[in-house]
Amino acid sequence: MKLAYRLWIENDGKAFGVGPYELLKFIEKTGSLFQAAHEMHLSYRKAWDLISKSEKRLGITLLYRKVGGVSGGGSTLTPQAKEFMKRYEAFHAEAKESLLSLFAKHFGAEDLSGNDSTKSDSDNA
Amino acid sequence: MKLAYRLWIENDGKAFGVGPYELLKFIEKTGSLFQAAHEMHLSYRKAWDLISKSEKRLGITLLYRKVGGVSGGGSTLTPQAKEFMKRYEAFHAEAKESLLSLFAKHFGAEDLSGNDSTKSDSDNA
Repeated sequence: MKLAYRLWIENDGKAFGVGPYELLKFIEKTGSLFQAAHEMHLSYRKAWDLISKSEKRLGITLLYRKVGGVSGGGSTLTPQAKEFMKRYEAFHAEAKESLLSLFAKHFGAEDLSGNDSTKSDSDNA
Repeated sequence: MKLAYRLWIENDGKAFGVGPYELLKFIEKTGSLFQAAHEMHLSYRKAWDLISKSEKRLGITLLYRKVGGVSGGGSTLTPQAKEFMKRYEAFHAEAKESLLSLFAKHFGAEDLSGNDSTKSDSDNA
């Protein structure tokens, strides 16, 4: 028995979850929305839409975009994006710890399958 | 900004979540898998499969089934099912409380939309 979960933030629809989060991490690493989309096997358009939707629903500008050039321009995270990601990471880590602990508390003694490890699914938005 | 989440139990696939839980609650109330399926707008077959899959993956017999008759027979919860549901309810209530509290801790000060209430999605399996 394993716990699985998804966590995401809504504001008139899915606003932020593991998808936008991972995309922002790749942008931070590569300095490019184009590269980040490639790493995540997303089209540039899809990645752009994902970020734009998060920006609109969170009310935060996440990226400074430079459009154009062969590589699709460069993108960097805004200070607001970095602050938001820090909060998201802290929330996510504490939520995971709490959920696994509560699951062990209520189901830990019930080893039905001989497999009592816990597994977490990532969230998605 | 609202938190949304899903929690479910896996064991070689989805084993238990809000679907089987609600079905069992209706069976407890009506004494009938047929009636419970009707209440949840599920076919009798689909409801039967849902319970059977949970039983197999949890390794617990959840229902005493009486097949036959116009109403599809009667069904009652096994003691193991009742015990499992008690654990599930306790886990779920504490998980919800913890998640909402952690969300408020990390995002409560960031009232981006003028809407800082929290919302929980139910889990699903």
